[in-house]
Amino acid sequence: MRALVAGGAGFIGSHLCSALLEKGHSVICVDDLSRGRKESIGQLLENDLFVFYCLDISRLEDLKRIFEKEKPDYVFHLVANSDIQASAANPEIEYRCTYTTTFNLLQCVKMSGIKKFFFASTSAVYGDKKGIELREDTPELSPVSYYGAAKLGSEALISAYSYMDGLQALIFRFPNVVGPGLTHGVIYDFIRKLEENPAELEILGDGTQTKPYMYVDDLVKAILFVMESGKDGVSLYNLGTDGCTSVTKIADILCEEMDLRNVTYHYTGGKTGWKGDVSRFRYCLDKIHSAGWKAQYNSDEAVRMTIRHELGKM
Amino acid sequence: MRALVAGGAGFIGSHLCSALLEKGHSVICVDDLSRGRKESIGQLLENDLFVFYCLDISRLEDLKRIFEKEKPDYVFHLVANSDIQASAANPEIEYRCTYTTTFNLLQCVKMSGIKKFFFASTSAVYGDKKGIELREDTPELSPVSYYGAAKLGSEALISAYSYMDGLQALIFRFPNVVGPGLTHGVIYDFIRKLEENPAELEILGDGTQTKPYMYVDDLVKAILFVMESGKDGVSLYNLGTDGCTSVTKIADILCEEMDLRNVTYHYTGGKTGWKGDVSRFRYCLDKIHSAGWKAQYNSDEAVRMTIRHELGKM
Repeated sequence: MRALVAGGAGFIGSHLCSALLEKGHSVICVDDLSRGRKESIGQLLENDLFVFYCLDISRLEDLKRIFEKEKPDYVFHLVANSDIQASAANPEIEYRCTYTTTFNLLQCVKMSGIKKFFFASTSAVYGDKKGIELREDTPELSPVSYYGAAKLGSEALISAYSYMDGLQALIFRFPNVVGPGLTHGVIYDFIRKLEENPAELEILGDGTQTKPYMYVDDLVKAILFVMESGKDGVSLYNLGTDGCTSVTKIADILCEEMDLRNVTYHYTGGKTGWKGDVSRFRYCLDKIHSAGWKAQYNSDEAVRMTIRHELGKM
Repeated sequence: MRALVAGGAGFIGSHLCSALLEKGHSVICVDDLSRGRKESIGQLLENDLFVFYCLDISRLEDLKRIFEKEKPDYVFHLVANSDIQASAANPEIEYRCTYTTTFNLLQCVKMSGIKKFFFASTSAVYGDKKGIELREDTPELSPVSYYGAAKLGSEALISAYSYMDGLQALIFRFPNVVGPGLTHGVIYDFIRKLEENPAELEILGDGTQTKPYMYVDDLVKAILFVMESGKDGVSLYNLGTDGCTSVTKIADILCEEMDLRNVTYHYTGGKTGWKGDVSRFRYCLDKIHSAGWKAQYNSDEAVRMTIRHELGKM
């Protein structure tokens, strides 16, 4: 198979590229390295089955040329703005990086007659449902972030292209994902803050924000497990793991792993870390479990393994 | 009130501009006249409370200047591609005319601190739900047209801006709307076809496609009735009328009103008029009825009145 991984130098994308190569697939990685990092695909560049294009996917004409030349038969779309706080200040980032990239990839897929498409969606499409267990058929999706809105708009586009162009589309709504090579997020931030000042830690919100954190290896395994289902239309799954971890617990695990005692936590206060953040959510995972897949690591384990990796202990 | 009506020279927009002026409001009409027609606002141009800008709303910087100069306090967003068959051949039309216009208007609203926003959405956001009565909380919206996808993406954007920027947003999901000044659609097409050849009529699909047709005066009254609800967040309503009318019945009413007998109908065949068309749908209207509004004219009446208007009989 010739897999085009859009956003393939990003945190999740680079893990997916590695896994696809291990399975013997050819990988065309397209990334503008704005958030993705060249180091994350450094080793892959030596593999004959791997080719890398440095391109901003919001540039449709250049993207078309890559599709014409490389003729992929499966497209994995993992491009998005990953800094939700940045787009809260400037929604244009989501318009360009999250929505327009989806539109451009679907146009190329349509033009090329490609029938297989994977999309990395998010829990943020639901909006803040106040503790209701989120199912794939939960009604009245009402995103509270520009990021969630652009992702939901992308899902809608995929629905239409799927019907109009006979696309077999797979959509996973990701929870928070952690693991080696993190480029952002609470674990990434906390480590940098404590390295700078091991006596104090600023924590956004009141620390009770509680979400499921999924290990990136589990996520990639789920994609590989479901990607060849061959079902017509859109197959959509919540993706997640057992349990949730509070922000304060993440800080506790990090201090323990760094052997720091008596770190003073300074909470900025409020129920959410930032405006547009959904501070608590729970997924119903019946659908993906019924498909025969289950995560190996729970949320606390995923957090601890990530921290140990980042500290060079694994 | 200073109302900015985006798409104000279009079929529905021009009726809304008239009604707002009648209520004594100032109206800033912005339209690029690509589908809207200058004649439809010809009389309004003589009104001191009416100002017209000819502008493509996908041009953000020019749009910003209008907002800065005119300082509207309510924005009515009725810009969209209205030719679904055209965008079926070229989805880029929906990206630019339907989604990007929403994004640009919301950016201007955010920049200007405007708190009131109306959006003309559509039954097409639901996709083809195979005869299920469509409620506002029907789950798993899955548009089958690029048009429906861009509208659903627009709703998602409005949800996020509503939360992030304190917008009071009103969204109506329109059914088919008919009335004086039609610029497209089945009635418009049939009249032109029969004027050219009164002996034969080509009908797309098998003629059993059956939808509710709403009279434009009813629609405008609904907007005026609900627009000042003052509720925070997004208020979303299905909008519609009693009954449905089949495409063959529209042809029958038209032949009757044109005094044509023995017109031969040629059906192109198939359940839908074109790919991405939803050939049958039924709305649950409990929510808008509970708000105290009900349409005056049913679907068959709306069709007949429109035909009589177009034939110069009203």
